[in-house]
Amino acid sequence: MSDEAYAYETITHETDADGVCTLTLHRPEQLNAFDVTMARELERFFLTEARDDSVRAVVVTGAGRAFCAGMDLAVEGNVFGLDESLDPSPEAFRAAYDEAPYHDGMRDTGGRVNLAIHALPKPVIAAINGAAVGIGATMTLSMDIRLASTAARIGFVFGRIGIVPEAASTWFLPRIVGLQQALEWIYSADILTAEQALEGRLVRSVHAPEELLGAAQELARSFVKGRSATALGLSKQLLYRNAAAPDPLEAHLADSVAMWHASVGDGKEGVAAFVEKRPAEFTGRASELPRID
Amino acid sequence: MSDEAYAYETITHETDADGVCTLTLHRPEQLNAFDVTMARELERFFLTEARDDSVRAVVVTGAGRAFCAGMDLAVEGNVFGLDESLDPSPEAFRAAYDEAPYHDGMRDTGGRVNLAIHALPKPVIAAINGAAVGIGATMTLSMDIRLASTAARIGFVFGRIGIVPEAASTWFLPRIVGLQQALEWIYSADILTAEQALEGRLVRSVHAPEELLGAAQELARSFVKGRSATALGLSKQLLYRNAAAPDPLEAHLADSVAMWHASVGDGKEGVAAFVEKRPAEFTGRASELPRID
Amino acid sequence: MSDEAYAYETITHETDADGVCTLTLHRPEQLNAFDVTMARELERFFLTEARDDSVRAVVVTGAGRAFCAGMDLAVEGNVFGLDESLDPSPEAFRAAYDEAPYHDGMRDTGGRVNLAIHALPKPVIAAINGAAVGIGATMTLSMDIRLASTAARIGFVFGRIGIVPEAASTWFLPRIVGLQQALEWIYSADILTAEQALEGRLVRSVHAPEELLGAAQELARSFVKGRSATALGLSKQLLYRNAAAPDPLEAHLADSVAMWHASVGDGKEGVAAFVEKRPAEFTGRASELPRID
Repeated sequence: MSDEAYAYETITHETDADGVCTLTLHRPEQLNAFDVTMARELERFFLTEARDDSVRAVVVTGAGRAFCAGMDLAVEGNVFGLDESLDPSPEAFRAAYDEAPYHDGMRDTGGRVNLAIHALPKPVIAAINGAAVGIGATMTLSMDIRLASTAARIGFVFGRIGIVPEAASTWFLPRIVGLQQALEWIYSADILTAEQALEGRLVRSVHAPEELLGAAQELARSFVKGRSATALGLSKQLLYRNAAAPDPLEAHLADSVAMWHASVGDGKEGVAAFVEKRPAEFTGRASELPRID
Repeated sequence: MSDEAYAYETITHETDADGVCTLTLHRPEQLNAFDVTMARELERFFLTEARDDSVRAVVVTGAGRAFCAGMDLAVEGNVFGLDESLDPSPEAFRAAYDEAPYHDGMRDTGGRVNLAIHALPKPVIAAINGAAVGIGATMTLSMDIRLASTAARIGFVFGRIGIVPEAASTWFLPRIVGLQQALEWIYSADILTAEQALEGRLVRSVHAPEELLGAAQELARSFVKGRSATALGLSKQLLYRNAAAPDPLEAHLADSVAMWHASVGDGKEGVAAFVEKRPAEFTGRASELPRID
Repeated sequence: MSDEAYAYETITHETDADGVCTLTLHRPEQLNAFDVTMARELERFFLTEARDDSVRAVVVTGAGRAFCAGMDLAVEGNVFGLDESLDPSPEAFRAAYDEAPYHDGMRDTGGRVNLAIHALPKPVIAAINGAAVGIGATMTLSMDIRLASTAARIGFVFGRIGIVPEAASTWFLPRIVGLQQALEWIYSADILTAEQALEGRLVRSVHAPEELLGAAQELARSFVKGRSATALGLSKQLLYRNAAAPDPLEAHLADSVAMWHASVGDGKEGVAAFVEKRPAEFTGRASELPRID
């Protein structure tokens, strides 16, 4: 895969035979600090290569000793990517978004990346190998599951420099750790140890540094090996959609559409294989998911 | 009660003097596997007998060694109850639902059952005595509280056969265990032990097998004995409604309506009894709950 | 500050040099029971004095051995503040609210208080020093973080007197402790010990009685000292708003507006100070927060 790949400057990626793609944030000299190039490359990767059917799941980690040390504040200009000359009313931002979603200067850069990650209908796992600060922390929230090494240090430090949590992080964080914990971490702007992050249920497990990436890849493999790409993609969409749906009836109608598609596709093969006590041969493709809402 | 009851084939139910109804999934030879008959009977039970004012709370358990081993895949035809000839667009499903909510073939069967359970304005408790797999697991999510025996094994195994989590389960599950845990269980499609389910906060307690049902019935009794059926019913409706309401103001307006009804009804008696230091004599009926939204 | 303050009858307040305001429920002979006067005074305080820029955070505690023993049921009349002659349909309540939000008799009193607390764009911390029952318990849910002393006893006891959980509590509680725990506490109407509240994640920590208030004040101080009032206020608004937003895109659009304001204001100073390795001098005022939605 990587032979033909787009020449990224700040990330590398490699997909194994099981479809587990490992994406590495790769500016080790800068502790993988996030800059405009990395933002564009992450958005591009999740909207293009990651959507190739050869990729079944993505594990994200950092090169060297950090995961991502946050926004590269050494860069000139408005590092948040926002145009100071704009009309900052909510109505103006919404109108501009509706007209030209990719218009530069209207949208928080980290949020663009997180929406691209969130939209990928495949499991995405963060392997937090070291410092994950600012956007380095919030970037992991749009990923489905977080594993940390004992060396991880995670900080929602926005308050220390007079800014706000971004990247849609306030949508994800309270749904992962609850409202009280989310408020305390945002208010305190502290750096959490791996153990604190585990106790607060931000990360699902903590690993020795040399075992972290393997554990994340193994978990990803267990999700996809022998499984239907369609069922996985629809399941991810249903979970995030219905976690914010107004009521169970609304969820049920989307379920019914999704189950209809599954039951005439990979589900038919899955049930047949189960009844016949043989391995299923699924043919559904994540690139061809039906609409469910 | 059971003398005059409808002759169910796949379930039994019995209500004690305190109004605690025990509903038993009763196909022990088939590990209480869920089939079309059980689906219809469960939906009927929760929409009819369970709504009788003599029933104050429902405990659901399984006969024999399983709770419910999931959809009976030995049955002929499309076991998910969906008509393959339909237009599977979300718009078509919604239009069909609006026109004929009980139209067969448009709606996931498990979801119909879970909506009926969810709509009952009384406490519903799952006593998970053994295997609870597929719809056997998701059926418990529409119940308010889950207790498990040490023999319980719970699996959201849909991914193994190429289908999606159904029965509005993706509305309930992240609100019970959080988004990260929900995603991992759905992706892994693993069978959880009772201890894993407790650690992940899916079940509220684990019991010795011979003590499970009694503990669930005792908990149900503690909720209803001497309590107002109106206050319980309104409280359940407020909790599920406001757990998904867009903001606290919206919740407050519904609260105010509910409190108005309580304060001119059983609340008036409750306060008087409290002030006079005597037991309250509540007369409100769950079958006559006012509208709150 | 307190020299010029409005003469409250049921509460006292005092703000220290760091802007940490301690609000004390002060009817110790009545265990700080909540009555119509306390309701009006709390609503007034959070809508006026607490909004002064000299106040950076609020800690709420109770005088004497209780936090707040609940609604004062010894008072004459309909203690819930609702007019029995009203049309109790949801439509009538909404129409009346839209026409005259402060119309007496249409709105649950506790809810008016909790909406005022919730709307304050500053950290609010409950220091639960003793009994917190009924509205004494639900009042703390609109506060961002709860600390308890070992002497705390917390009870959502509404069901015991035939009424419903009020004060928008059913919006907050499941988002703090999850749906299953919320349902059990509301159904049981039991009094929880501090340890039970900690285990259920309702309170973030438990303290010796003599250390509780200091710990709460210290936590508040750590949130505000050297921090931007604008960033804190916007962060609080984003968190509560996006915790109930329908999807991450919706959250992202609000984020972008908030980040725009931060990045041309205190964020600019914060980044400059960080790069120059000096303390930031923030000038943003919570009283002048921009609109973000």
